[in-house]
Amino acid sequence: MTGAALAQRYADVRAFSERLVKPLSPEDCVVQPMPDASPAKWHLAHTTWFFEAFLLKPYLSKYQVFHPKFGFLFNSYYNALGPRHARAARGLLTRPSMEEVLDYREHVDSHMAELLAENESVETARLIEVGLNHEQQHQELLLTDIKYTLWRNPLRPAYQEPQETAATTGEAGLQVDSRSFTAIEEGLYEIGRDAGAFCYDNEQPRHRVWRDGYQIADRPVTCGEWAAFIEDGGYRRPELWLSAGWAAVQREEWQAPLYWERAKDGPWRTFTLSGMAPIDPAEPVCHVNYYEADAFARWAALSEPGLRLPTEHEWEIAAAACGFAPSQGDFADGGRFHPSALPAADGVAGLAGGVWEWTASPYIAYPGYAPPAGALGEYNGKFMCDQWVLRGGSCATTASHIRATYRNFFPADARWQFSGVRLAK
Amino acid sequence: MTGAALAQRYADVRAFSERLVKPLSPEDCVVQPMPDASPAKWHLAHTTWFFEAFLLKPYLSKYQVFHPKFGFLFNSYYNALGPRHARAARGLLTRPSMEEVLDYREHVDSHMAELLAENESVETARLIEVGLNHEQQHQELLLTDIKYTLWRNPLRPAYQEPQETAATTGEAGLQVDSRSFTAIEEGLYEIGRDAGAFCYDNEQPRHRVWRDGYQIADRPVTCGEWAAFIEDGGYRRPELWLSAGWAAVQREEWQAPLYWERAKDGPWRTFTLSGMAPIDPAEPVCHVNYYEADAFARWAALSEPGLRLPTEHEWEIAAAACGFAPSQGDFADGGRFHPSALPAADGVAGLAGGVWEWTASPYIAYPGYAPPAGALGEYNGKFMCDQWVLRGGSCATTASHIRATYRNFFPADARWQFSGVRLAK
Amino acid sequence: MTGAALAQRYADVRAFSERLVKPLSPEDCVVQPMPDASPAKWHLAHTTWFFEAFLLKPYLSKYQVFHPKFGFLFNSYYNALGPRHARAARGLLTRPSMEEVLDYREHVDSHMAELLAENESVETARLIEVGLNHEQQHQELLLTDIKYTLWRNPLRPAYQEPQETAATTGEAGLQVDSRSFTAIEEGLYEIGRDAGAFCYDNEQPRHRVWRDGYQIADRPVTCGEWAAFIEDGGYRRPELWLSAGWAAVQREEWQAPLYWERAKDGPWRTFTLSGMAPIDPAEPVCHVNYYEADAFARWAALSEPGLRLPTEHEWEIAAAACGFAPSQGDFADGGRFHPSALPAADGVAGLAGGVWEWTASPYIAYPGYAPPAGALGEYNGKFMCDQWVLRGGSCATTASHIRATYRNFFPADARWQFSGVRLAK
Amino acid sequence: MTGAALAQRYADVRAFSERLVKPLSPEDCVVQPMPDASPAKWHLAHTTWFFEAFLLKPYLSKYQVFHPKFGFLFNSYYNALGPRHARAARGLLTRPSMEEVLDYREHVDSHMAELLAENESVETARLIEVGLNHEQQHQELLLTDIKYTLWRNPLRPAYQEPQETAATTGEAGLQVDSRSFTAIEEGLYEIGRDAGAFCYDNEQPRHRVWRDGYQIADRPVTCGEWAAFIEDGGYRRPELWLSAGWAAVQREEWQAPLYWERAKDGPWRTFTLSGMAPIDPAEPVCHVNYYEADAFARWAALSEPGLRLPTEHEWEIAAAACGFAPSQGDFADGGRFHPSALPAADGVAGLAGGVWEWTASPYIAYPGYAPPAGALGEYNGKFMCDQWVLRGGSCATTASHIRATYRNFFPADARWQFSGVRLAK
Repeated sequence: MTGAALAQRYADVRAFSERLVKPLSPEDCVVQPMPDASPAKWHLAHTTWFFEAFLLKPYLSKYQVFHPKFGFLFNSYYNALGPRHARAARGLLTRPSMEEVLDYREHVDSHMAELLAENESVETARLIEVGLNHEQQHQELLLTDIKYTLWRNPLRPAYQEPQETAATTGEAGLQVDSRSFTAIEEGLYEIGRDAGAFCYDNEQPRHRVWRDGYQIADRPVTCGEWAAFIEDGGYRRPELWLSAGWAAVQREEWQAPLYWERAKDGPWRTFTLSGMAPIDPAEPVCHVNYYEADAFARWAALSEPGLRLPTEHEWEIAAAACGFAPSQGDFADGGRFHPSALPAADGVAGLAGGVWEWTASPYIAYPGYAPPAGALGEYNGKFMCDQWVLRGGSCATTASHIRATYRNFFPADARWQFSGVRLAK
Repeated sequence: MTGAALAQRYADVRAFSERLVKPLSPEDCVVQPMPDASPAKWHLAHTTWFFEAFLLKPYLSKYQVFHPKFGFLFNSYYNALGPRHARAARGLLTRPSMEEVLDYREHVDSHMAELLAENESVETARLIEVGLNHEQQHQELLLTDIKYTLWRNPLRPAYQEPQETAATTGEAGLQVDSRSFTAIEEGLYEIGRDAGAFCYDNEQPRHRVWRDGYQIADRPVTCGEWAAFIEDGGYRRPELWLSAGWAAVQREEWQAPLYWERAKDGPWRTFTLSGMAPIDPAEPVCHVNYYEADAFARWAALSEPGLRLPTEHEWEIAAAACGFAPSQGDFADGGRFHPSALPAADGVAGLAGGVWEWTASPYIAYPGYAPPAGALGEYNGKFMCDQWVLRGGSCATTASHIRATYRNFFPADARWQFSGVRLAK
Repeated sequence: MTGAALAQRYADVRAFSERLVKPLSPEDCVVQPMPDASPAKWHLAHTTWFFEAFLLKPYLSKYQVFHPKFGFLFNSYYNALGPRHARAARGLLTRPSMEEVLDYREHVDSHMAELLAENESVETARLIEVGLNHEQQHQELLLTDIKYTLWRNPLRPAYQEPQETAATTGEAGLQVDSRSFTAIEEGLYEIGRDAGAFCYDNEQPRHRVWRDGYQIADRPVTCGEWAAFIEDGGYRRPELWLSAGWAAVQREEWQAPLYWERAKDGPWRTFTLSGMAPIDPAEPVCHVNYYEADAFARWAALSEPGLRLPTEHEWEIAAAACGFAPSQGDFADGGRFHPSALPAADGVAGLAGGVWEWTASPYIAYPGYAPPAGALGEYNGKFMCDQWVLRGGSCATTASHIRATYRNFFPADARWQFSGVRLAK
Repeated sequence: MTGAALAQRYADVRAFSERLVKPLSPEDCVVQPMPDASPAKWHLAHTTWFFEAFLLKPYLSKYQVFHPKFGFLFNSYYNALGPRHARAARGLLTRPSMEEVLDYREHVDSHMAELLAENESVETARLIEVGLNHEQQHQELLLTDIKYTLWRNPLRPAYQEPQETAATTGEAGLQVDSRSFTAIEEGLYEIGRDAGAFCYDNEQPRHRVWRDGYQIADRPVTCGEWAAFIEDGGYRRPELWLSAGWAAVQREEWQAPLYWERAKDGPWRTFTLSGMAPIDPAEPVCHVNYYEADAFARWAALSEPGLRLPTEHEWEIAAAACGFAPSQGDFADGGRFHPSALPAADGVAGLAGGVWEWTASPYIAYPGYAPPAGALGEYNGKFMCDQWVLRGGSCATTASHIRATYRNFFPADARWQFSGVRLAK
């Protein structure tokens, strides 16, 4: 990427973050609805601190930090960069104000412009790319967290007006067939990203894996199918659940995906960033966790033996075989921030965008993986324990952020992400 | 009180609440730093709901509630008035916005003006007085809670500029003698508020108690004395503490009053609503809990046997005997919101204002007490369990709110109130 | 008491402890069913350590402790006597075995015999009396804790065979009138134990209190009355409960006293030390906590305004006025360990034994109270916080242990004691 | 296996369980030191219930259960077999007594003898084999849990006398080289157990995996090496730890493997089933969890880049290539119950027995895995979430229980198992 292209990408990504908070009040941006979520203002400041800590301080001569305590306040989890504010207390930071945070962004942006102008090394370009991808991750988290925040308010306020999309102007409710499958041959496949191209460390090294033949579903599981699972006692039958999942179902009293609600005997409705809305049976189901995804697959296997979740290898091999086209996917760029029903299509569809797809793969290192030296070594490697891989991006992901080899990961009980299910067999 | 006087008092009290939030940003007003504290915005709305629920709905004909869900959002603990938002989740209410809450206040105020004009019954006047006293209580809580909120921020932001007062312009640091005492004779005394005058239900009925003779300290314990207690190992000696208090000291790692901080080997400093400040040894110590007050008294008794905390009866008898003059006390009306060192004086001083004074009396019903009928019966009576009485008001209390018979109460481990200590023997 | 009388009393008290564990297996004696309860074996060893620590070590020349670690294992809460095993881990002490603990008892008993023979000072006699009273307290706790332990077993094993008593051989089920009252005049009364006679420090100093006239119920509340309270929604109506009590009812899902159980639509039955048994409506209700006692009184006041719990002063004045005769009470000496229905009688009955009676008095120091010097100062004083006074002893108390001035105390939520209710008005 | 051989194996396995509790008192056998451990008596009863529930009730005509409530008490986690006693309350079951449990065992054994005599079907033989393997698993758990129980006692009582072994009679302390490696070629390997031979469902189906070439350490990590890790700040350097592991280190204040203790500046000692003992630097380190194993590998990689934990595939391939000989391993059959230093040997040693070896593999289903129908489907499959695979067996495993394909699994923070570390690169 040329320096000018990089500068343009920098400007675009940074601007998108600020666009995302436009519909929000200062109060919306400060609160933290649970320890795992962060306030919108914190996301804006943390992503800015990332550029300050990893680019400006080491590479821009005579750079002065904007505020001596912001490193403490906005470091997320980098032990190598010193102590930091407690994660669960991010929501108590009423100061700095949103204006100060926007000033902070401007300060860092103007110095990044200097750096971009004066330093064209491969190393800084690589770090800037990391910083931009990092900010894109936080854009999705910002949407995810603000959705959860607004939903915790009994008034159920909307982030934005309902959005029209191509998909929703068509015949909404058309039942697509998520039980047609595409076969993949057995063989020795390559997994992971080639050296050279940008990616996160956890997508490397590219390596060989053997897979016996299998089939992958052409569509993600829909809300209509999920409603049938609920109807059939899905949340009341321990034999369908992992042991830890069943314990969680009982403790948390889950009866449907997160955000689904219904009045007694009424139809299911769901909370979206445009407020409460009826459920479209043709939409991909969203906001289910790994336990639910796994239980759904076991339930589906009762009527069609062999149904299960795909591994991340199977998912990536299918994406390589069947095409992975972010430009045509259902991404945050569209501005709807809710998964749309897929249009009719032949073969495997919906891999890119819509909903993140849980895989049956725990998040661990690829063979030969080594975290990078320095603080960036903490970016991914230290989280490789007791989390599960999701693939493909969602309606809250930016299209330019995703790849077929991209590995997202969350614990088995996480439901507030835009996460859904695709079956294999 | 005439209708006009009541209307004026209504206007004054309501205006003071709004004055208190003037220095705050919308973000400051929304967060909740712990389950026992409430956001400033919530205080503004809850006190307004109180008038709506107890006055406008029952007494103003054709009154329409401002918002159908505000009763759910802003009811605090009245089971008789229906379900309500979870206390610990008050800080998630980013909506309604501060403007909407101020609109709510205006809506209620204008209808209260109608009610005040059309209804001059004793019953509504009594309820309005309750509502105004209720709002004054929340004004103190608002200050108390916002102090805690700001302190939880590593930036230690100030609520206001440092305030000059008569006391602080004099010789700050003058050591007053808090170990001179005034003797009270034994006898049969009357305790509690006479029927007729306004007070809370928990101050009645007035009743007789027998007291043997005792002495009450002329001053509250000062920061200087407290520093000596710390220096002498006060927080490290189990023999000075109640069993539950010692467990709390170890669990919470308390080493000084709340808000006291010092760098290694540096002098103690304290957080105030005007930011971090040096400690004036002559100031009444503030932000200690019952466990600490009791431990201090046991420590003091090591050098002067018989020293202890007064009971609430002893406190009230002393106030009756020695005078209780809110007009001359250190109250929120002064706007400093931090206890000032007392000027030199003969006899018992500082009973009114400055710091709430812990007594050795658990908060229980007076003989013959019966809670009022209806929802207001939940105001006080249901909390008469495992709390301790504090007396006298503080620098965050409004002078017109306090009485010598006034019974404040908090659990033994509460430190975020403006609470201090006076000894007896 | 002469030396010989004291030696006899020593032998009797110690033997009774050992009699109490006779029906138990070694396994019954080792487990700890909750942090507030202790294993039977621990009670046997701790009471023995008490004599070793407070008598033999300081007063018997050349005494060698039985085992160097027993001080660590069997110290309960005396900070002055050094560190100790964690309370909640008492149930993990499979060693020393029961035989070793009985050897320990014999070792201490034989050295206590030496001490009794050689030392007749007032000081040691006083300490021995404390140690014997201490052991009697633990005898009751042993019964209380073993009852809870056995009940936690789904097999509901019995400690002993059902026991006949005078009361139970008569007309069981006879409904006594617990709503007749005896009037007490107003006046200045003396409360607490005279100097000279043996008592715990918390019963002193004797002091004057003023009481307006009141009436005290002639009988404790019965199981039949409690069943009516349940039937009338007692456990489902928040208006009857203290705020903390209502929170506990919901959290713990209490629907009846501890140990009451019933099959769907079946009659109530209760667990006793003789196994599950039908409920006798005429028996005093037992195993209710302060919250329940208070709620029952509020419920009773709905039909008879003014009904409430007595204060501990009112209880003690009534006992002084109406007679308190342990020799005729329902105590552990009878060996039934379950409260019996009271025989017909005029006036106030059942004060001594049967069930401990909750009072409306928090457990605090009497005016002028000072804990004794040394480790025994920790016996009572440090627990004077957030507990409530119970009076009169129970069917698990030894008759020679109780006095009209005796102050027992437990937290408001404790149900596993033999605790009941008497009303006043 | 012939019927007679199976009957003999049944007798041997059952007898070994009873031999294991011989050194224990009834008290030792009843307590439960933490929710994840079970009392010895419960292990004895639960394994017996397994035969009753899976064999006698379905297959032995007219079989009467020994006790109607034992199914409730001794079912572990089989939802398909009905409700059960809470896991964390197993330690409260003082009844049935140990004698009753031994009677229960005899009752079931005599009826199993009938069944073995009359029913020679493949199906019952298979289920009996499952039951015997199940009991062998619990024999190891019994040893593991009783070790933890005894260690929780400040007296540190021993289960048995110190045991001599071949290894310990030689030159104890000889430093073996755990950093020599054996190379394994890249290739397509088969993993898992062949159909036909006995194994658990989770070892099947046998399937192909591709592995690039790697090297496996010839020895497990020793105590001497672990002491060097501690000395070098291993437990104080966040960069060596997984994020969740570092949080656990700080929360739990781990500074060494479980059971390691030292006086200030003294040498490390460790608790064994023969009491406290000095640490032999040549012994395999034991009682470390996955976090510690992973941190050790990262630390080792600082001096020798590429060092890491093996995957379970790598471990199994190495075992197939280098030999896995339970008959020569360090197993429970030897009766020492503590890992011995390995004798000098060429090539890969110590795979069988000694310590379980943590692998870098989360415990998930093999491709094509399906749990068996019925209650036995709950045996393994429902635990395939957030646990890690250990291989090879330990000094607490019976030799006849282990296989090279055997997959043990525990959560990342579990330390009370006999678990150690082998490196790969």
